[in-house]
Amino acid sequence: MENFVHSIPTELYFGKGQISKLGDALNRFGKRVLLTYGGGSIKKMGLYDEVMKILSEGGFTVVECDGIEPNPRIESVIKGVKLCKENNIDVVLSVGGGSTLDCSKAIACGVYFEGDDLWKMVKSEWKLKKALPLVDILTLSATGSEFDGAGVISNMATDEKIGAMFTYPAVSICDPTYTFSVSKYQTAAGSADIMSHIMEGYFSRTDDCDISDGIAETVLKTVIKNLPLALREPDNYTARGNLMMASSVACSGIPEYGKQGTGWPCHGLEHELSAFYDITHGVGLAILTPRWMRHILKKDASTTGRFVRFAKNVWGLSGGSEEVLALKGIYALESFFKESGIASNLTELNITEEYFGKMADHLEAEADLKNAYVPLTKEDIIEIYKACL
Amino acid sequence: MENFVHSIPTELYFGKGQISKLGDALNRFGKRVLLTYGGGSIKKMGLYDEVMKILSEGGFTVVECDGIEPNPRIESVIKGVKLCKENNIDVVLSVGGGSTLDCSKAIACGVYFEGDDLWKMVKSEWKLKKALPLVDILTLSATGSEFDGAGVISNMATDEKIGAMFTYPAVSICDPTYTFSVSKYQTAAGSADIMSHIMEGYFSRTDDCDISDGIAETVLKTVIKNLPLALREPDNYTARGNLMMASSVACSGIPEYGKQGTGWPCHGLEHELSAFYDITHGVGLAILTPRWMRHILKKDASTTGRFVRFAKNVWGLSGGSEEVLALKGIYALESFFKESGIASNLTELNITEEYFGKMADHLEAEADLKNAYVPLTKEDIIEIYKACL
Repeated sequence: MENFVHSIPTELYFGKGQISKLGDALNRFGKRVLLTYGGGSIKKMGLYDEVMKILSEGGFTVVECDGIEPNPRIESVIKGVKLCKENNIDVVLSVGGGSTLDCSKAIACGVYFEGDDLWKMVKSEWKLKKALPLVDILTLSATGSEFDGAGVISNMATDEKIGAMFTYPAVSICDPTYTFSVSKYQTAAGSADIMSHIMEGYFSRTDDCDISDGIAETVLKTVIKNLPLALREPDNYTARGNLMMASSVACSGIPEYGKQGTGWPCHGLEHELSAFYDITHGVGLAILTPRWMRHILKKDASTTGRFVRFAKNVWGLSGGSEEVLALKGIYALESFFKESGIASNLTELNITEEYFGKMADHLEAEADLKNAYVPLTKEDIIEIYKACL
Repeated sequence: MENFVHSIPTELYFGKGQISKLGDALNRFGKRVLLTYGGGSIKKMGLYDEVMKILSEGGFTVVECDGIEPNPRIESVIKGVKLCKENNIDVVLSVGGGSTLDCSKAIACGVYFEGDDLWKMVKSEWKLKKALPLVDILTLSATGSEFDGAGVISNMATDEKIGAMFTYPAVSICDPTYTFSVSKYQTAAGSADIMSHIMEGYFSRTDDCDISDGIAETVLKTVIKNLPLALREPDNYTARGNLMMASSVACSGIPEYGKQGTGWPCHGLEHELSAFYDITHGVGLAILTPRWMRHILKKDASTTGRFVRFAKNVWGLSGGSEEVLALKGIYALESFFKESGIASNLTELNITEEYFGKMADHLEAEADLKNAYVPLTKEDIIEIYKACL
């Protein structure tokens, strides 16, 4: 059991109609609001109008920063920071999923970044001291960005995708009804993201943290139970609500409290993939994770016990030798992703092995793979990518 | 699934040696410290000296408020508030278990209470707006006071014991090694308190909150696994650490997120008991809880499904009819408390039925028993007390 610090300052308003708290939340910080959002889905679902009505009635001055990409780019951060500075913004309001929120976190920090190259901020400033306050309304259960301080920003010019610690939202409004209109594909990809956040920490050398491991297994079982329900009945409040709670807990750090860090290898592997191919993060994770699991199980037999626990406690499996049970659990995960409608290999996404070497070089230089649960070499990385074809 | 708000501003430093963060934590708020503690166990274990050394080297001015009772009294609150006002205190530092911390929360709020009767504050001011900042060093895994805003204060003059919402600690230092010297009896009683916090919320009419229920079951299973280990090996860091994490999660509200409130009937029943007899809170709860369970299961058969879930998911039981399985789970809980060395009835504590009527009258007037999982009448309350003899 390792030492840890719990410090999550975010206030989270969960449930139907919690948007009624928006005006009060913003008023704590000021009247000049930067409204950030993506491609317009919030307009289609009517949320944009609802937000604008509240902002107008509350006497807020609104500056819009729209068009934030699914894998948000540094250009959007630069644009947002410029708008904040030009308009003397008091508070950033992010309406959307994890990408919009990640970008908004970087914008909130970027306003106070001393330097003219914001990509340098993303790459180097792990602990930024000051940021504009950030309020968000969540529309996708996936990244957990509503309950953590991190964000992931891409730079297509350098084929890089970097995760950094920016700032926690001051207030997150999490209303499951806003996810009713999320497509089956995005719902499944988001759930793969949630599960991946858990699994990256679950597979660790620390075996004695009963609270953290139990919470991790709870989140996995919650997704396994509720994703199929949400796919069948997109308006099922219970299913959407459970997935939303799972999203927030998964990335909060809580399921890893007391556990040795693992370097999150699958996230690293996926960031390379989507930096090169701009694919959906959760889809990349769903393809990579079972292959990574099989690779490390084969490479290091001391992982077998943890995989057996995964098979038993998460999937309710039993019987067979330890080795067989370990593989059964991985197969159950792979089947679950497949049944949820996610592409099951990279070939389906028209990805070839062309850049695998380059991606592995990047990853070796950038990521913390030596401290992974099973440390990965460049050869391991290429082998895992190839198994995904 | 009900709406909820997550808002826990406490920073929690968990693990060996985290006392090294004490100086910095206090320095955020000022140099004049009210040091609160209980009967001297912190002196016996050397923690008092360790704290005083840090305070002296950090240049803090220390005013001591010692002798805080196990069921803290309003007189200690009055004394602490007076010391704060007389000495222009900047920050309260509580070193001890939940009782010391509860009292310190009331002191921190009492400094800003406008009125001359602090018992009125305890009884009526549910949401106090302002309080002195509070830092604590925890020495007992039990009440969860290190990670919530509530406290319980007793008034022996009026035979009352009242739980109120005061203020969250700004910083909690949770080092499991400080619980190595806790007696077997107090360790077991503290664990009963932790389990009771969970069970009061677990038995609710809301059945669709998979994250909350899974976390609740995790905490219960963690205590069931780690309490016997801590009793056998008081210096076992893993066992003590898991109990300490369980304590913080149990009372945080997280295991009840999205669930209908239940009025916490066992806590109400126990508060009356210890208001009249000054017994250890966790012991009272351990005696009351299985009796309360049997009473409501018999009174309202619609609770059977939840008790079956409790038996299966928490105790790993199976087989028999639903009714039998429900009772098996309750029996497992009762046996667990008994094996951990807690008194198993009120007669052992020299308590007779003399005041049961008066206690039931008090409870009916004070507590929210109409909204309990199974609403309780005065007759129910007396019957539960009698079953405890």
